[in-house]
Amino acid sequence: MNVTRIIGIDPSLVACGWGVIDKAGSKLTHVGNGVIRPPAKEPLASRLHFIFAALTEIIDEYKPSESGVEQAFMKDNAMSALKLGQARAACILAATTNGLNVGEYAAKVVKKSVVGTGAADKAQVAHMINLLLPGAHVKAGDAADALAIAITHGNSYVAVAQLARRAG
Amino acid sequence: MNVTRIIGIDPSLVACGWGVIDKAGSKLTHVGNGVIRPPAKEPLASRLHFIFAALTEIIDEYKPSESGVEQAFMKDNAMSALKLGQARAACILAATTNGLNVGEYAAKVVKKSVVGTGAADKAQVAHMINLLLPGAHVKAGDAADALAIAITHGNSYVAVAQLARRAG
Repeated sequence: MNVTRIIGIDPSLVACGWGVIDKAGSKLTHVGNGVIRPPAKEPLASRLHFIFAALTEIIDEYKPSESGVEQAFMKDNAMSALKLGQARAACILAATTNGLNVGEYAAKVVKKSVVGTGAADKAQVAHMINLLLPGAHVKAGDAADALAIAITHGNSYVAVAQLARRAG
Repeated sequence: MNVTRIIGIDPSLVACGWGVIDKAGSKLTHVGNGVIRPPAKEPLASRLHFIFAALTEIIDEYKPSESGVEQAFMKDNAMSALKLGQARAACILAATTNGLNVGEYAAKVVKKSVVGTGAADKAQVAHMINLLLPGAHVKAGDAADALAIAITHGNSYVAVAQLARRAG
């Protein structure tokens, strides 16, 4: 059975979570996870480059072929949206410049995919990640969301591949 | 006299302006300018990568050693801020991954630097650019802002270099 290696990324200028899983059919295996923390006092350009370079290193090391990035919907606080937008682009470009497909998933879709409800909190997501990926040992609010995004992309990616096979 | 080549970038997901100038002392020369228009119907990741790749090509061709990018202050409309943030990060990373310094300048500072008042409109900026950079032939709203950002960075960059020399 083909194994697909997927990196999930939860963009942030402060603490950018990442998680790598292997997916073979319905079997998921945890490969690695962590949090990228750019130096807070550096100028924006340096922090963006720090995220981009750190993700490039992680992609070089783990060699995923697919990626998922959390989608953002902002209703207020334009300055936060601007910062998040910049962090997202650094994550997306680290994936595209390394030749990866990028799936984008709203937080609600990620929660529904992993916990079964779009209203789940961070602790529930982390709990389910530790059940789904034994050995991941993630803490809430760290890389759990990134692993959840990777799982969501795994479901979506396989669904697309199956559709393509049926249509072909 | 040393010539410093500077690229100015006006980030946008729709029409991203760029302009390259040479600065030798107080003498400015227009080198090139244009607008990058990513395919509007492509997914976000493709559009960001389009901007990143196009700017990388422009930097490869013109070989600037310095860059300036317009700073953004958003007070409302979080979704616009998110989009602009993503476009800005693509521009900044195209500069940093090619080894350029990045200066960031608020629109008001750019207008004051080129027209003499922070309240200048786009047409005034374009008019001054065509006076300051004969041969640039820019139209309002296209790459004029990008050339204005390059000029602003030129002033700021030289000011920093002079301070460093005096301190040294």
